[in-house]
Amino acid sequence: MTTNAVSVPPALGRARTLVDPALRAAVAGLDPANRAISEYHLGWTEADGTPRERAGGKAVRPAVAILAAEACGGSPERAVPGAVSVELIHNFSLIHDDVMDEDAERRHRPTVWALWGIPAAILSGDALQNLAQQVLLPCDPRASIALGEAVSELIRGQTEDLAFERRDWVELPECRAMAAGKTGALLSASARIGALLGGGDDSAVDALSTYGAHVGMAFQWVDDVLGIWGDPAVTGKPVLSDLRGRKKSLPVTFVLSAGGGSARAIGDWLAGSEVLDLPRVADVLEEAGAREWALAEAGREVDLANQALDSVPLTESARDELKELTRFLTHREA
Amino acid sequence: MTTNAVSVPPALGRARTLVDPALRAAVAGLDPANRAISEYHLGWTEADGTPRERAGGKAVRPAVAILAAEACGGSPERAVPGAVSVELIHNFSLIHDDVMDEDAERRHRPTVWALWGIPAAILSGDALQNLAQQVLLPCDPRASIALGEAVSELIRGQTEDLAFERRDWVELPECRAMAAGKTGALLSASARIGALLGGGDDSAVDALSTYGAHVGMAFQWVDDVLGIWGDPAVTGKPVLSDLRGRKKSLPVTFVLSAGGGSARAIGDWLAGSEVLDLPRVADVLEEAGAREWALAEAGREVDLANQALDSVPLTESARDELKELTRFLTHREA
Repeated sequence: MTTNAVSVPPALGRARTLVDPALRAAVAGLDPANRAISEYHLGWTEADGTPRERAGGKAVRPAVAILAAEACGGSPERAVPGAVSVELIHNFSLIHDDVMDEDAERRHRPTVWALWGIPAAILSGDALQNLAQQVLLPCDPRASIALGEAVSELIRGQTEDLAFERRDWVELPECRAMAAGKTGALLSASARIGALLGGGDDSAVDALSTYGAHVGMAFQWVDDVLGIWGDPAVTGKPVLSDLRGRKKSLPVTFVLSAGGGSARAIGDWLAGSEVLDLPRVADVLEEAGAREWALAEAGREVDLANQALDSVPLTESARDELKELTRFLTHREA
Repeated sequence: MTTNAVSVPPALGRARTLVDPALRAAVAGLDPANRAISEYHLGWTEADGTPRERAGGKAVRPAVAILAAEACGGSPERAVPGAVSVELIHNFSLIHDDVMDEDAERRHRPTVWALWGIPAAILSGDALQNLAQQVLLPCDPRASIALGEAVSELIRGQTEDLAFERRDWVELPECRAMAAGKTGALLSASARIGALLGGGDDSAVDALSTYGAHVGMAFQWVDDVLGIWGDPAVTGKPVLSDLRGRKKSLPVTFVLSAGGGSARAIGDWLAGSEVLDLPRVADVLEEAGAREWALAEAGREVDLANQALDSVPLTESARDELKELTRFLTHREA
């Protein structure tokens, strides 16, 4: 799963070209201080405000929104406010999560709170959360409602994730529900909002929402595998990064929930009562089948995502591109 | 201004009785952790979750929304979602502001971050911001747009307020614009949203928005006077509280902008180069006319608020109650 690189789908670049001007225009409407911070966070400027060549993240959610609209026979342009709104919510959550997780770096750059302090990071995140609804409000009330529900799920997921840190034991279903909120909900909403703005009927809207939810889960399974067994040269994260923080990720909770000797060893390690070095923890998890099982789960989620796409009539080219996007997100070396 | 106590207007109690069940139902829809924190913050529970007799704040904004709907001939019930949404936004901003201002107490109780930590305070504030739009979305898109604009102004105001802390000199127009965002915008939106949900025509909606904006400014002028010259036994704040934090409040920036010897003395004190004890600072401000001028400004804002109410046909009883509410908010001993 981590060895077969998949080239970047053209849909990502196409969506970015389409969405970027509207995203920049929306952010330009913020008050000067929160605008400057947001432009830095989005990778458009340096900390001193000078423009920057290389843009920010992959903009996966905007691409899902655009493709979902096209899949429903709508023009990609109609989905642009939806694409902007989900990208704004994604970035609101990143800015606030970095404060909560005390992460001083993101994408090899200092995070907002590390540069400007916690109050500025809280405010700029608040501003992006609000801006997301402002961008979407003139479109379709159903899209605004879908965004509100996704934000609610996102917050629930992050709340649970933080609660897990204070516990020594987390069961797999809890971890799955957390990931569904933290990663699945916004990808599902991206597809749903795109489908709504693209004029999809109820069955297409629901099928695309289901697609997004499963892609989110598949992405998270792969991300959790890479967080333990990924190559730091490729992931850009420290080796064994998720184990350093004793993160109760999906593979870890799989082993805990499976019971037996491996569960006890991992449970004792999480409780701090057994001293295992991190490569040994990774080995225990792998021997207990966590890696193989997680990748199988990712594959299962990909299958469910594709089945959802195949369950309704959609524009063929957009359906193919959605499947290509799924492959890219779940066959990452990064 | 601070000597004539005005009794609590019945409209506050009536609005609270009407709005409270819907507010509680909305908060009950949050995930368990953010629900528990929000219920504590709103004064409904102790930190351990046990119910509490005495409820939270005065719920001024819900009352304004309800009265604005009635003033437009609408039933108060129609404004309830609007009243809930502005109260949720008010409390989102309080929870986040307490983190930013490092305030460990509010209304004689520990603040959310002081009890549960900064991450939990960020998340519960985020949850309330989102919930506010969720409550309003099924009503009238114009109301949702008004709420979004108010939140944007609120964030701008708080951003500027924090920036002022790092400066030695703030001009009066800047301080006025900050207060218009931080205090005026949400009171204006409360009246606007109530008027919209109450079925007001454009002129009534605009007049009530104007009313709310001026009430907000009047309230802030009085609040800033009390922050310097208020009786701690009544305000519940430390004596000279705003001077302790060298806050660039409206009276302080009035003196700075007026120039002359008083401006230099206050400017030097803010810059830390002149050692003045706080009662002496209060005296310099008073001798420079700041207190008298601020109260006159508050009176001017009250007049403008009343003129706005008198500029359009409104239900008489609700108009009278809105004026009574203004008197209460601007003739506070507390």
